[in-house]
Amino acid sequence: MADGNPGKGLQLRSLITKAGQLELSLATVEAPDPGPDEVLVRVEASPINPSDLGMLLGPADLSTLESQGGKLSAKVPERFLPALAARLDQDMPVGNEGAGVVVAAGSDPAAQALKGRTVAVLGGAMYAQYRIAKAADVLPLPQGTTPAEGASCFVNPLTALGMVETMRREGHTALVHTAAASNLGQMLQKICLADGVQLVNIVRSAAQAKILTDIGAKHVLDSTSPDFVAQLTDALAETGATIAFDATGGGRLASQILGAMEAALNRKATAFSRYGSMTHKQVYIYGGLDTGPTELVRSYGMAWGIGGWLLTYFIMKIGPAEAGKLRARVAAEIKTTFASHYTAEIGLAEALRPEVLARYNAKTTGEKYLVNPQKGL
Amino acid sequence: MADGNPGKGLQLRSLITKAGQLELSLATVEAPDPGPDEVLVRVEASPINPSDLGMLLGPADLSTLESQGGKLSAKVPERFLPALAARLDQDMPVGNEGAGVVVAAGSDPAAQALKGRTVAVLGGAMYAQYRIAKAADVLPLPQGTTPAEGASCFVNPLTALGMVETMRREGHTALVHTAAASNLGQMLQKICLADGVQLVNIVRSAAQAKILTDIGAKHVLDSTSPDFVAQLTDALAETGATIAFDATGGGRLASQILGAMEAALNRKATAFSRYGSMTHKQVYIYGGLDTGPTELVRSYGMAWGIGGWLLTYFIMKIGPAEAGKLRARVAAEIKTTFASHYTAEIGLAEALRPEVLARYNAKTTGEKYLVNPQKGL
Repeated sequence: MADGNPGKGLQLRSLITKAGQLELSLATVEAPDPGPDEVLVRVEASPINPSDLGMLLGPADLSTLESQGGKLSAKVPERFLPALAARLDQDMPVGNEGAGVVVAAGSDPAAQALKGRTVAVLGGAMYAQYRIAKAADVLPLPQGTTPAEGASCFVNPLTALGMVETMRREGHTALVHTAAASNLGQMLQKICLADGVQLVNIVRSAAQAKILTDIGAKHVLDSTSPDFVAQLTDALAETGATIAFDATGGGRLASQILGAMEAALNRKATAFSRYGSMTHKQVYIYGGLDTGPTELVRSYGMAWGIGGWLLTYFIMKIGPAEAGKLRARVAAEIKTTFASHYTAEIGLAEALRPEVLARYNAKTTGEKYLVNPQKGL
Repeated sequence: MADGNPGKGLQLRSLITKAGQLELSLATVEAPDPGPDEVLVRVEASPINPSDLGMLLGPADLSTLESQGGKLSAKVPERFLPALAARLDQDMPVGNEGAGVVVAAGSDPAAQALKGRTVAVLGGAMYAQYRIAKAADVLPLPQGTTPAEGASCFVNPLTALGMVETMRREGHTALVHTAAASNLGQMLQKICLADGVQLVNIVRSAAQAKILTDIGAKHVLDSTSPDFVAQLTDALAETGATIAFDATGGGRLASQILGAMEAALNRKATAFSRYGSMTHKQVYIYGGLDTGPTELVRSYGMAWGIGGWLLTYFIMKIGPAEAGKLRARVAAEIKTTFASHYTAEIGLAEALRPEVLARYNAKTTGEKYLVNPQKGL
């Protein structure tokens, strides 16, 4: 066994059985010795992102949640099982991203150089005490950065950077963001301020609006306001934003944004076009806070699009060199632009307590939980 | 006045007043002498496409239609007027495309060479006895082609070719078409047979299905059939179609197509992906037979898109050289692949008779009217 490798550790697992039962448990798994180009990371911080909840809980009916012997179980309604076919009866590790300390390293110089360093890791199985990774895949954090500070280096920061990059690549010059007071939304606002990009933030309460104006946001609109559409049209006319990233998905918000973009563009129209403005208007749906249908009232001509947006696909599209530049920016600005705020830090066993699960699964804007696999052991 | 130029002619006009009144009339307009690089065309055939009806009638309430002194008038509900601002109080010519004979030509050799030729023209104001055009913009038809045969050289043929070309450019290998028994749909099926491209046709009746199977269509599905979605999924799995062109717009059809594409792709999935298939699924809405909202039940992962598709934007995107190739193909195959069928031929004065208008405005699949501005004078 390599120096620094304890040999085994706990890992959180999510199983959905063919019979329609969700089971969450802690497994003791082997911590393998790193290969020549690998490192073994002692994970100390891993956030619970909405995407992690999807993997952890699936479509389980949490009103049936039961706790027994440190395990949690719940029923998964039968209608959801076909879509889950490929994961049924497989005990899956969970946790997309996190950070920790390299406790053992392979013989390659690139791996050896990481020994003792605090690094960030992406790729699953992070709700675990130990995680093996390729040296080339980990992101070494600047000296003086704690694992908690570096836990959210990938999902939110790269998503926020990916939005701005997508805006540029698709020929737009300003953008719109919904559910904008989230950790992600705050990062996006900071990036836009740093890069001189105009951002129209849409939130659902005055308290959320204050979070954004406090960090310097200029355009913050409350979608519950009676004159929301008029305010949105004004903000779009002023900024020229023709692309939006929407975390809600369901309902009419995406369509309202396209309609307001069209109205803003038509304020400058000089000739009649029966197909509406020729300027392409785009909404990307990247989340599903509202899982209901998306309703499109097509009153925005023919130059419009709506589609899904996923960080993974974006990274594949831009390629490793461009992705590397974005990662380097995240590491350099992890304590400023990309700083995350957590509501509480919980251990692996705590994560399997029903009352704790209810809190981290509430998806309240501005609340986020951090798993520390070394806590409470 | 140039040889062959009669000096003036009738032109159909559509006016919407600021007071909300639609007025259709015939105006006597000057037929200008062609400049050096221009030709004067005596228009003999011009189809009434759905896009022409949009320009001709706007959102007028046809239950208020009145005929007086050869003119037609109707009320336009006030709520539609803001979107029409740029055309209000302007007497607009109508008729996107058509064909006729060059009766006068400018001094340039390219213009002179067209004298006496039957040519097709795109660009509006074709519901008129005479139309001036740049020699470079007209499409000379093969010898022996009548104006009626060449009247629909642009909108439907280029739209059908544009769909196949869009499919190729966006990396798909087979496609889906709705309202598929239309003139356009039949052309698309013929192109696909000629080019070896698999096409899944969606229609709304057995009679429409027969139109397509009669010309060799392999996949024809009736969306009113109780097992439509299952049949569609089978056809998509067999053809691998991941792009669709939808003429209906409203309702759930676009979403059903995306869902069936996803289900077809998942039949081949080997590993669980909580974000669905990574293969991009696209629906382009190019018409609005159903003007109601589009409802998206987002059950097809994150790799999907819906958007507007307009021939004009497509032609701008591919540029004049590529567009020229498509036009040349249309001219060469105007009596076969791109042959159109017309229900009746009507004159300009006839077009302004309420009972005739009711017929050509019915938008019945398989019915299409041809305006002959030389008829009935």
